[in-house]
Amino acid sequence: MDEFDLIRRYFSTLTPPRADVALGIGDDAALLRPPRGHEVVVTTDTLIAGRHFSEDSDPQAVGWKALAVNLSDLAAMGAEPRWFTLALTVRMADPDWLAGFAAGLGALARETGIALVGGDTTQGALSITITAMGTVPAGKAVRRSGAQVGDAVCVTGTLGDAALALRLGQGEARGEAQSAELERLRTRLHRPVPRVAAGAALRSVVHAAIDLSDGLAGDLRHILDASDVGAELHAHRLPASPAFKALSDPEERLKLQVSGGDDYELCLCLSPRAIAKLRKRLDVPLTEVGRIVKGKSLKLLDVRGKVLALDPYGYRHFT
Amino acid sequence: MDEFDLIRRYFSTLTPPRADVALGIGDDAALLRPPRGHEVVVTTDTLIAGRHFSEDSDPQAVGWKALAVNLSDLAAMGAEPRWFTLALTVRMADPDWLAGFAAGLGALARETGIALVGGDTTQGALSITITAMGTVPAGKAVRRSGAQVGDAVCVTGTLGDAALALRLGQGEARGEAQSAELERLRTRLHRPVPRVAAGAALRSVVHAAIDLSDGLAGDLRHILDASDVGAELHAHRLPASPAFKALSDPEERLKLQVSGGDDYELCLCLSPRAIAKLRKRLDVPLTEVGRIVKGKSLKLLDVRGKVLALDPYGYRHFT
Repeated sequence: MDEFDLIRRYFSTLTPPRADVALGIGDDAALLRPPRGHEVVVTTDTLIAGRHFSEDSDPQAVGWKALAVNLSDLAAMGAEPRWFTLALTVRMADPDWLAGFAAGLGALARETGIALVGGDTTQGALSITITAMGTVPAGKAVRRSGAQVGDAVCVTGTLGDAALALRLGQGEARGEAQSAELERLRTRLHRPVPRVAAGAALRSVVHAAIDLSDGLAGDLRHILDASDVGAELHAHRLPASPAFKALSDPEERLKLQVSGGDDYELCLCLSPRAIAKLRKRLDVPLTEVGRIVKGKSLKLLDVRGKVLALDPYGYRHFT
Repeated sequence: MDEFDLIRRYFSTLTPPRADVALGIGDDAALLRPPRGHEVVVTTDTLIAGRHFSEDSDPQAVGWKALAVNLSDLAAMGAEPRWFTLALTVRMADPDWLAGFAAGLGALARETGIALVGGDTTQGALSITITAMGTVPAGKAVRRSGAQVGDAVCVTGTLGDAALALRLGQGEARGEAQSAELERLRTRLHRPVPRVAAGAALRSVVHAAIDLSDGLAGDLRHILDASDVGAELHAHRLPASPAFKALSDPEERLKLQVSGGDDYELCLCLSPRAIAKLRKRLDVPLTEVGRIVKGKSLKLLDVRGKVLALDPYGYRHFT
C-alpha cells in the first residue's frame, strides 16, 4: 500500500451509507439509484491553491468550502443533494492536512446528507475538484431562464460579508467586540453555508434562481440574460449583517454588497404575491431587493429612485 | 468576456445534443434524465501534466485520453456512457492548445455518443478531471466482486503495447517498417480506445470485470481481493500485437504484458462455456488467459505449468 492508497482510506468511510447508493467507493465506478420520476442534477467546481484559497489555509475550511460551492449550485436548481465525487491533487500525503481536510469535508457532507461515492487522488499542485449530484422531480428544476417582468428579486441571508472579510484580510481587529464580528465575517468567507434546505423549498414557487458566488450584480446578470429581461435593484434594501454594518467603510458598502462574491446566498425571482408563502418555508431570512422589468439593463437605485453607477460584470470590473 | 469565458465557449458546443439532457452547459448545474429502471454509473479520473502526460504532449492526445480513461471505467461496469463534466485547469488560455485539446476530446466523445454537460475552467497547473456518467439496467452492473472458482479469465485486445511504447520512449526507430510498428504502439499509449461496445455486451454474461489501467497483475488482483478467490494465468496465452512482437525485447515481454499499465483493455471473469457466446457479441478479440481458482494467490505459469515469479502489485514493484 503506497501513500496514495492511504489517502483513499481516509475517504472510504467519510460519509455514512445511503440507500440510494448501490455501490460506493472501491470498484471501477459507483452505482447510484435516482428515485423514479426524478432528473439528476450535476455540477462541478474546482478550487485551486493560490487562487481560491491560500496554501496555508485551514484544511478544514478548504474541505468544507470545496463541497459548499457545489452544494450551493445544487440548491440554486432546487435539487436535493445526494452524491459527490472528489478529485484531490496534493503535493504529498501530509497526514495532518488530510485529516483536517477530511474533517471539514465530512462535516458538511454529513450535515447535508450527501455521500462521497468515488474519486481520484493524484500527486501535483494542490487542487480539489468536486462533482456533486442531486435530484429534482422531473421538470421541477429551477433554471436561470424563467424570470418574468414584474417578478420580485429576493436574496437569502445577508450580502457582502465574505467580500468584507476578504477586504479586511488577516489584519488584527482592535477591540474584542470587533474581533468577534470579524470572526463572523471570516466564517462566512471560509465556511459558507450552502442554502440546501432553501433550495428544496423554492421549487414550484420561484421562477428563476442562481447562487451568489461572483456577486449580486454579476450573477443576477446571468438570470437577466437567460430570461431576456432587465432588473432594478434598491441599494438601501440590500440585507447586511450586524458584523458587516459594524466593520465596513460606509463608502465601500455598496460595492461590497453588489459586486462582492463568495456569499453563496441564493438570488430568486418570483411573483411578489408568493414571497410570504416562501418565507414561511425557509430557514433563512428572505429580503426583497428589487424587481424584474422590461428591457435588458440592470439598474441600481438609491433611496430616492436615482440610478447609481453599476458595472454589470460584478466585482471583476467594478470601480 | 474574459479569457476563461472564451475557454468555456470552446466547450459549449463540443458534443451534439442528447435527448436525455434536459439542460446542459450554462446554468448552475446540468439536468439529466436517466432511463426508468436504470442505475447511474459514475467515475472520476484526473490527468496531471508532468505525471500522466508531459507538458508538451499533443493536446489532441491529452483530450482524447482524459475521456478515454473514464469511458474505460464505465465499460468495465457494463455501462452505457451518456454524460460527462470537464474540470480543466490551464496556466493560460493558449488558443492552439485549447483547440487541439477540444478536438481530441470531442472526437472520442462524438464517437462514443457521450455528451459534455458541464464543468469548470480554472487557472493553475495543467490538469484535467473528468467525471463520466452512464447507466445500466438496475442490478445488471458488472462488479469486481463476482468472480467464481472455475471461471475463465479473459482479456480483450492485446496486452503490453502501451507499456512498450513508454519503454521505447521518444527514440527514433531504425527502419520504415519499425516506424510504422512504433507508431501503432504509441497510438495505443496516447489514444487508447476504451472498450465501450464490449462493456455493454458483457452485461449478463461475465461475473466480474475490471479495466486494465495499472497492468494485468495489479488489476486482476483487485478482482481476486473483492471476490475472495485466486487465479492462474498462462504466460504463453497473453495476447500480443504484431507491433509488440516485432519491437519488444524477448526478456522484457512478460513484464510488459503482465505488469505494464495503460492498455485500457478489459479483464473479464466468466463461465468457460460463455466465452464463445460473448466472443460473437464483441467488436474486439477475446483471449482466455487463465482460470479463477480457490485460495487468494495469483500465479503466473509457463507453458509447462511451472510457476513464474510475479509481484502482485504490478508494475510498481515488479522487478
